[in-house]
Amino acid sequence: MSVLGDFMSKTFDSLQPYLDKAMALETARSLFEWDDQTIAPFDAAEYTSKVVGILSDEYMKCLINDDVRKIIKKLKEDKEQENLSDKEKAIIKELDKTYEQLESIPPDEYRAFNELTLVSNRAWAKAKKDNNYEHFAPYLKKLIEYKKKFAGYRAKKGQEPYDVLLGDFEECFSIKELDIFFDKLKKEIVPLLKQVAEKSDTIYKNYNFLSYDIDKQKDFCRYLSGYLGFDFNRGVIGESAHPFTLNLHNHDVRITNKFIENNLESAMFSVIHETGHALYEMNIDDALTQTPVGTGASMGMHESQSRLFENILGRSKAFWTPIYSKLVDTYPDNLKDISLDQFIRGINKAEPSLIRTEADELSYSLHIIIRYEIEKAIFAGEADVDKLPELWNNKYKEYLGLTPTNDAEGILQDVHWSYGEFGYFPSYAIGSAIACQLYAKIKDLMPVDDYLREGNITPIREFLRDKVHKYGTTKNSNQILKDVTEEEFNADYYVKYLKDKYENLYLS
Amino acid sequence: MSVLGDFMSKTFDSLQPYLDKAMALETARSLFEWDDQTIAPFDAAEYTSKVVGILSDEYMKCLINDDVRKIIKKLKEDKEQENLSDKEKAIIKELDKTYEQLESIPPDEYRAFNELTLVSNRAWAKAKKDNNYEHFAPYLKKLIEYKKKFAGYRAKKGQEPYDVLLGDFEECFSIKELDIFFDKLKKEIVPLLKQVAEKSDTIYKNYNFLSYDIDKQKDFCRYLSGYLGFDFNRGVIGESAHPFTLNLHNHDVRITNKFIENNLESAMFSVIHETGHALYEMNIDDALTQTPVGTGASMGMHESQSRLFENILGRSKAFWTPIYSKLVDTYPDNLKDISLDQFIRGINKAEPSLIRTEADELSYSLHIIIRYEIEKAIFAGEADVDKLPELWNNKYKEYLGLTPTNDAEGILQDVHWSYGEFGYFPSYAIGSAIACQLYAKIKDLMPVDDYLREGNITPIREFLRDKVHKYGTTKNSNQILKDVTEEEFNADYYVKYLKDKYENLYLS
Repeated sequence: MSVLGDFMSKTFDSLQPYLDKAMALETARSLFEWDDQTIAPFDAAEYTSKVVGILSDEYMKCLINDDVRKIIKKLKEDKEQENLSDKEKAIIKELDKTYEQLESIPPDEYRAFNELTLVSNRAWAKAKKDNNYEHFAPYLKKLIEYKKKFAGYRAKKGQEPYDVLLGDFEECFSIKELDIFFDKLKKEIVPLLKQVAEKSDTIYKNYNFLSYDIDKQKDFCRYLSGYLGFDFNRGVIGESAHPFTLNLHNHDVRITNKFIENNLESAMFSVIHETGHALYEMNIDDALTQTPVGTGASMGMHESQSRLFENILGRSKAFWTPIYSKLVDTYPDNLKDISLDQFIRGINKAEPSLIRTEADELSYSLHIIIRYEIEKAIFAGEADVDKLPELWNNKYKEYLGLTPTNDAEGILQDVHWSYGEFGYFPSYAIGSAIACQLYAKIKDLMPVDDYLREGNITPIREFLRDKVHKYGTTKNSNQILKDVTEEEFNADYYVKYLKDKYENLYLS
Repeated sequence: MSVLGDFMSKTFDSLQPYLDKAMALETARSLFEWDDQTIAPFDAAEYTSKVVGILSDEYMKCLINDDVRKIIKKLKEDKEQENLSDKEKAIIKELDKTYEQLESIPPDEYRAFNELTLVSNRAWAKAKKDNNYEHFAPYLKKLIEYKKKFAGYRAKKGQEPYDVLLGDFEECFSIKELDIFFDKLKKEIVPLLKQVAEKSDTIYKNYNFLSYDIDKQKDFCRYLSGYLGFDFNRGVIGESAHPFTLNLHNHDVRITNKFIENNLESAMFSVIHETGHALYEMNIDDALTQTPVGTGASMGMHESQSRLFENILGRSKAFWTPIYSKLVDTYPDNLKDISLDQFIRGINKAEPSLIRTEADELSYSLHIIIRYEIEKAIFAGEADVDKLPELWNNKYKEYLGLTPTNDAEGILQDVHWSYGEFGYFPSYAIGSAIACQLYAKIKDLMPVDDYLREGNITPIREFLRDKVHKYGTTKNSNQILKDVTEEEFNADYYVKYLKDKYENLYLS
């Protein structure tokens, strides 16, 4: 410990009680969210939301106040800066983000927006159930108005409102980068998908939709998760309507799954996906957990980990070679006549479909591009909210060759907008692309397929831990990519991966 | 609304933000407790305890401060008092209790005590596992020292330290009342239990220890809980090492159960017991929930509800008449030859045993009396901590005719002392006695057995809701007893109930 280090800690230490309190309140909020999604009784919501509201207010008050403002200001002075560790600098950067996101927004408007999201989410659920976009449209308009206004308060000179929103999820991606990325994808994938769609029937997959005992699914999914390295002393698996990952800290990481009797793949690939997220959070360095930088670098970087496990590893023949027999033994009646090769073709079958969350790996990013283009038009003032269903349906026809028969399977399908979350969707596609870029490097460095065939996930997991996971948000996604792959984000790996895979599967 | 009412609300309203924040923090703490006992991963504790510690500190800071102190002082002035509702007066009384419990204790000592309870609980668990009282004794001494010191700070002039501790759980019971109560019980039960013990073999119960499929146990226990009125829209049932009830508010009440394959009764009577607690919390008035008076009147009153359901109703022939066939149908191989009468005798079999939590209804209170007498001696300075095992064993010999073969099944069996909880045990016996006193009144007012035979629990549950549950802590246990039964606590009902029941079962 240097003298400078000791001196430094005095200023930074005065921030610690605020960080600790905010961490405790945020952890409590996370636990309430987990509980709400997994086991809380139905009628509890009205009363429990009061509790969560108070905790959220306290969180804001604890971080956004004059005392913290003064400490941050002092820590930004040159003589303090040079004494700060990387971790401390990263924490201040995160606090800056929080201030940037919240400080310029009048508290009344912010509270009104949060209250709106509660009712707008319910309105969306009803609209989707009733297949009635008109019921949701007025709420959507209000949400967009608020988000435009907030983005206006926050925008730097000349910055587009949509760029402000995108930045909340991916600091390395603005409209400029995404346009390039998505144009490249469209150019390559739209024609490829058309070719594949014509040959979709060549892959047999009926076995997937037989009856699969749910208790056995649970056991096998738990096995899969542990096989990939999920540590059951530091995590649990629950059930919920939509699978998700949530962490209280790096020693308590939780995933959920959802089981469907007549679909073998659904729960298996959900658990592999969520385990990818969970490993990220479990591998955050102990020194960073329970601090503002103790979580994944960005939504896209997080999604890269879940998709690397779910798609690149989890849908490969090498991965299933040592464990497919265990799956067959679990369901001998259904699978005894399905060879490993047939199974691998089945889990990689691609065909255009209407629902994003059920899409295959090839068509997935087209679902994202449609949402991105619509959001961009909305925030550029180029789209009429009342006419969004038409816009949506036209784009599905153009990119996927399909037209939704109703808005429930069209524009109303995703929950995100009902919470006012705009700018989130691109992270899903960014994640797929980052996964491919990282994986290309991993393949250069180690015999991945040999390891997978031996049932040895450890070298891959440890590589990701040491090169990606452990840093939390002390590096952003581009810094991680540069340090690991010696280049910044490059979508070519993703395009090459998809072309190689699907040409090989369907067109060779 | 009167003008006075409006005037009143202004002063009381200034208290509301503190009460709301304290409620939110306390609800969060409860959720962490539920989570820890049911599903939290093993290694999470070290990190999560930091969160819980911060939330607890915030809770204290939020209630114990000069602002709240001033408001309470003002609200106690005569001109304010006359404008307060019963609910508001009760809330101030609860705050007074919190201040009385905490304000006179130096914060350093209080924190040191709380830190001690964490390590002393672990030391107890190890001591019990290793059957090594000497390992726990030094911790127990420290816990007692702290508790004596704290009681000394808090004691009113001339008040015994042990009376201070008892008052935390039962404001209506001090050493004076408990000595009378327990002397009466000892005089009646010790000789009766001796008679019963000699005839214990006349009741056949081997069937209870056959193999009972746990999934079926779960289904039947869930059925039992719903049958009694547990509202699954406002509550959930989990699993834990020791069954317990916990509520976030009156719309989220949770119970746990524990299943043992070779014991039919264990989980069934646990779930009836916990459902009794849960109904109390579910029936708290909506106007009281999420306030400091929105929970049971006292530990003893709470226990009276669980024991009324578990023992008085749940072990009666009338209760099982409409549902025993469902149990037989669940386990036909094990139960087809066991008649309802045999089953009723089986679930009421009494014999002296060493473990409190497994004790039958007749011998149960003797386990409590032993703990009470030892605690009383400890806090009167009349017991040497190193010689407690000897004292314990002598009392078991005297009252139950049995001697523990080791301290794990003797003085180390209960967790309470390891958390520094002294004065808690009497509530269990008080609960049994209150249950009998209430039940005598219920029998006067309605044909309970007829209702039970018809499978109609509603009139009993609604009576308890309207006369006991809904008031929360706005009435203390003696006020409730007086309002319902026209007399204060009277242990004669309990003694008569036990004598009638066991003489009829064994000696007639």
